[in-house]
Amino acid sequence: MLKKIPEETITRLSYYLRALLFFKEKDITIISSKRLADFLKISHHQLRKDLSYFGQFGRKGVGYSCVRLIESIREILGLNREWGACVVGFGNLGRALSFYKGFKDEGIAIKAAFDISENKVNKDYANLKVYPLEKMEKVIRKEKIQIGIIAVPKEAAEAAATRLAECGIKAIFNLAPVKLDIPKDVIVKDVDLSCQLTSLTYHLKLLEAKQS
Amino acid sequence: MLKKIPEETITRLSYYLRALLFFKEKDITIISSKRLADFLKISHHQLRKDLSYFGQFGRKGVGYSCVRLIESIREILGLNREWGACVVGFGNLGRALSFYKGFKDEGIAIKAAFDISENKVNKDYANLKVYPLEKMEKVIRKEKIQIGIIAVPKEAAEAAATRLAECGIKAIFNLAPVKLDIPKDVIVKDVDLSCQLTSLTYHLKLLEAKQS
Repeated sequence: MLKKIPEETITRLSYYLRALLFFKEKDITIISSKRLADFLKISHHQLRKDLSYFGQFGRKGVGYSCVRLIESIREILGLNREWGACVVGFGNLGRALSFYKGFKDEGIAIKAAFDISENKVNKDYANLKVYPLEKMEKVIRKEKIQIGIIAVPKEAAEAAATRLAECGIKAIFNLAPVKLDIPKDVIVKDVDLSCQLTSLTYHLKLLEAKQS
Repeated sequence: MLKKIPEETITRLSYYLRALLFFKEKDITIISSKRLADFLKISHHQLRKDLSYFGQFGRKGVGYSCVRLIESIREILGLNREWGACVVGFGNLGRALSFYKGFKDEGIAIKAAFDISENKVNKDYANLKVYPLEKMEKVIRKEKIQIGIIAVPKEAAEAAATRLAECGIKAIFNLAPVKLDIPKDVIVKDVDLSCQLTSLTYHLKLLEAKQS
């Protein structure tokens, strides 16, 4: 039986992967947990604890092989294959996500976008087709889409998520700043950009207090 | 002397704030730590631990007053005032961020955008002015901008961050999928969307394994 792995460990694994790719590009083959942790501004205890959930990596006193750890993390995260995704909402954010290079680099292929606006649908944008919502079920099945990315205004987010769930989607990446109330068997990852940004205002406030 | 507060605690505070606003809108005045934690799918121990860094909130066996806790978290995060921000890079992502309602709701006002493209600069987009990079220092001073948001391609991100730091910016919100090497006195919050998304592929992989 697998131990319950904290959600934050999973997210950090992606950051370890990103950092390891950075070092690999600089021709670094072996890296210590301390150096990797310092680079990411976390403690090396945290790094080692996160990895320990998945097995034994690296050699004590030597470090991790970049290439091998990259391969292992990709396998853990399911990135050693392609995933099909769709974007719901083709406004500025939807467009940004549809053509976000970072997704493609990790094997996440945006296969289709959906929008309610008649001006946007049934057109091709740089090889991406934008469909009306009525086509969702058919397109998701045809394109074998497994991940739904929500980039609609917050008022429309829950309806979009419900529709995706009805079409069989089991994983939703939600960028609308709202909690979704949808079936429990759908995995939702909320990325609320304003929540992320407000950690900066906290630090700015401390900085101002120090200076005054 | 304040205890060192984990970065993740700060981020979670924003999510607590968002959830409390949700409950307040539903006319809920008192909420237990368990209900709040369940709503956010975290443990109530975590919630209580996070809040304990900042003092004593709520009453044992009763719960938190939504209004009071909202006020306290806003004060902790420095959200009881306005902050000026600018967006560097006015592509799809830059536009999405410039007009992101969630920022405005939390008192983060986008005062200007910057871009290198001559087609985009010196124009107004829905009351937001886009400037060429050469104007950065002047605009940042004039508009009292304290936060820089990076939405340029990853190859250009470090140059953008360096320029922001030279213009006196102490807080950077980085959406380019790359680690920035800039002066230590600048606070950087990296939001790598692909890192966030890959936690979904992890769960999808587990789900498939369970079904097969």
